[in-house]
Amino acid sequence: MKVAVIGVGITKFGEHWDNNLRELAIEAGTKAIMDAKIRGSDIDSIYLGNMSAGRFIGQEHVAALVSGELGLSIPAIRVEGACASGGIALREGILSILSGQNDIVLVGGAEKMTDLMTDSTTTALMGAADQEWEAYYGLTFPSLYAMIARRHMFEFGTTREQMAKVAVKNHHNGSLNPAAQFNKEITIDEVLNSTMVADPLTLLDCSPITDGAAALILCKAELAKKYTDNPVYIIGSGQASDTLALHDRRSLTTLDATVKAAQVAYKQAGITVNDVDMAEVHDCFTIAEIVATEDLGFCKKGEGGKLLDEGATELNGRIPINTSGGLKAVGHPVGATGVKQAIEIVLQLRGEAEKRQIKDANIGLTHNVGGSGATAVVHVFSR
Amino acid sequence: MKVAVIGVGITKFGEHWDNNLRELAIEAGTKAIMDAKIRGSDIDSIYLGNMSAGRFIGQEHVAALVSGELGLSIPAIRVEGACASGGIALREGILSILSGQNDIVLVGGAEKMTDLMTDSTTTALMGAADQEWEAYYGLTFPSLYAMIARRHMFEFGTTREQMAKVAVKNHHNGSLNPAAQFNKEITIDEVLNSTMVADPLTLLDCSPITDGAAALILCKAELAKKYTDNPVYIIGSGQASDTLALHDRRSLTTLDATVKAAQVAYKQAGITVNDVDMAEVHDCFTIAEIVATEDLGFCKKGEGGKLLDEGATELNGRIPINTSGGLKAVGHPVGATGVKQAIEIVLQLRGEAEKRQIKDANIGLTHNVGGSGATAVVHVFSR
Repeated sequence: MKVAVIGVGITKFGEHWDNNLRELAIEAGTKAIMDAKIRGSDIDSIYLGNMSAGRFIGQEHVAALVSGELGLSIPAIRVEGACASGGIALREGILSILSGQNDIVLVGGAEKMTDLMTDSTTTALMGAADQEWEAYYGLTFPSLYAMIARRHMFEFGTTREQMAKVAVKNHHNGSLNPAAQFNKEITIDEVLNSTMVADPLTLLDCSPITDGAAALILCKAELAKKYTDNPVYIIGSGQASDTLALHDRRSLTTLDATVKAAQVAYKQAGITVNDVDMAEVHDCFTIAEIVATEDLGFCKKGEGGKLLDEGATELNGRIPINTSGGLKAVGHPVGATGVKQAIEIVLQLRGEAEKRQIKDANIGLTHNVGGSGATAVVHVFSR
Repeated sequence: MKVAVIGVGITKFGEHWDNNLRELAIEAGTKAIMDAKIRGSDIDSIYLGNMSAGRFIGQEHVAALVSGELGLSIPAIRVEGACASGGIALREGILSILSGQNDIVLVGGAEKMTDLMTDSTTTALMGAADQEWEAYYGLTFPSLYAMIARRHMFEFGTTREQMAKVAVKNHHNGSLNPAAQFNKEITIDEVLNSTMVADPLTLLDCSPITDGAAALILCKAELAKKYTDNPVYIIGSGQASDTLALHDRRSLTTLDATVKAAQVAYKQAGITVNDVDMAEVHDCFTIAEIVATEDLGFCKKGEGGKLLDEGATELNGRIPINTSGGLKAVGHPVGATGVKQAIEIVLQLRGEAEKRQIKDANIGLTHNVGGSGATAVVHVFSR
């Protein structure tokens, strides 16, 4: 499998009080079109990841909205898998090219979370969990991940300091990323002493509420050199599911969907985990990055904390994780995150990641999760 | 292009006060699996069309929900394009097979509209239209289609009686369909004299609010005979978009997205409109069926009313339209409708449509619309 990325575009992630969803999506899409040096009319289809525009802004049918605003009349498909919507949009864009029906595809992700129409953002986000068996009983996403964290601490001795190190590292990386919502560094003490949200997770263990959009131009591999001297190729794509409800799973500390999606993607790419030079993983909460590094195989189960203690996941470490700043510092506009992750890997592989550029970047990975792990999508990128 | 349908399953359409979304989806999915005589573990991916579970029942991430309830861990993708969500799910399922990544795919459509969580159904459905430029100013879907109807009457002399004939015909067909929400015949006078909803459209010009689910098992064409002696093939798939807002369009009386999607599908299938033996078209309002028959090419623009006067679209007519009973009589669980349309064509081509079976059914067409025409999806089926 081989599909090329020939263009990327992203808005500033943060609170956009002066821009609505369509404006954010158009900005990201237009930047990607310009980066790819194509015309809008070259695009065959649009895949847009969006989780909950219906509840956030009363607007469904957002892919057609974006297509119409771009002046196009091509197939426009919104895909949704909660916070993995962006990763799924990327995957469906890839499959549509492999199907032979499309040559060039615009893959976007967008979410406007601050214009909340009804109830609370926390309530709306619980649409990603099991409404009848989790939300109804008062669970929230911080509390779901707090249970994962407590169990991880119990089973493997993972510490609060190790979780805090995820936030500190990702804020450092985010301070080097102009698109990030937070550009400031934080300390372990600040994480540990910030407001308690769901014991043991404090405010600085949690990714924020964010508006933003991101876009990629995908192209049939054989056509890539026509548009750019510096294409990046997607060589593996895996997606897997699990029960929506956390309590239905075999384990609280492994996301089986991540394990399975990664196996599929590695096999398709013809690589092992040791070939991966860097990864953007789904750190919606600090514990989630620890669990992800284990489930993706960057260390043994239970040793995600140790990986942080060793500095292995820092910019100059053995396996840099979330060089963009992750969901934690770049922000988490839920439907856009999976596409943003891909952009970071593309920039690293092109050597355009500026102050956060890592050395010898040849193979990168993205890992996007929906809910507490009911969906996981893994992609492998290569120069 | 050629992909096979080897199984179909559908719930009764109507008000389901004793079943929730997951139960409806599982019922339809299980029936389709049994009809195809496969095991659940044979399925490679699930594509689920759903418009607005977030607003109707607070639940996003519905494809993973269904996958989990079926005990599967495969890729599960919700696709959304308003009332065309089911048609898009079918199309994406097809593309995923053509991509070579999947052999067997479950395509579902499901909507639970009667458990409304917040505001009104009419308000929630306006998520399919332009929230900022249509909904905000008080427009509703009946009023949008009323404008289309008034303009069609003005331009082409279409009459209220002709619109009523759509409802009468589709209720007749629905009276022969056990899955239909309404099994009773109605008269032209009853349509004309029912409660006015949005002048000129009365209550019986409008499709109802419905719960229901529908499912198809798709399979790589070369593998179909392994599972069934009676496969139906999808030989053409077209999708197109237009502006979300009706007022931004070139015309009120032609859905350009329908015209374009049909052209693509006919070309791909290697047929002309004259080869089509029957069609399920998107009659969310009676005027919509008239416009659709014109835009698909079954008659000249403006002559959709005449087609009804001639009886050409009746069960024994030249080109039977909505043999199932259409959205009007079968009901319109928005995300499920596009899949239900495909099931009707499959049953007709298999010769299993019982009392509504048409003669010499060789090629059938489905036409699914999102919003007031911002999305249109057309599929061509053959024996």
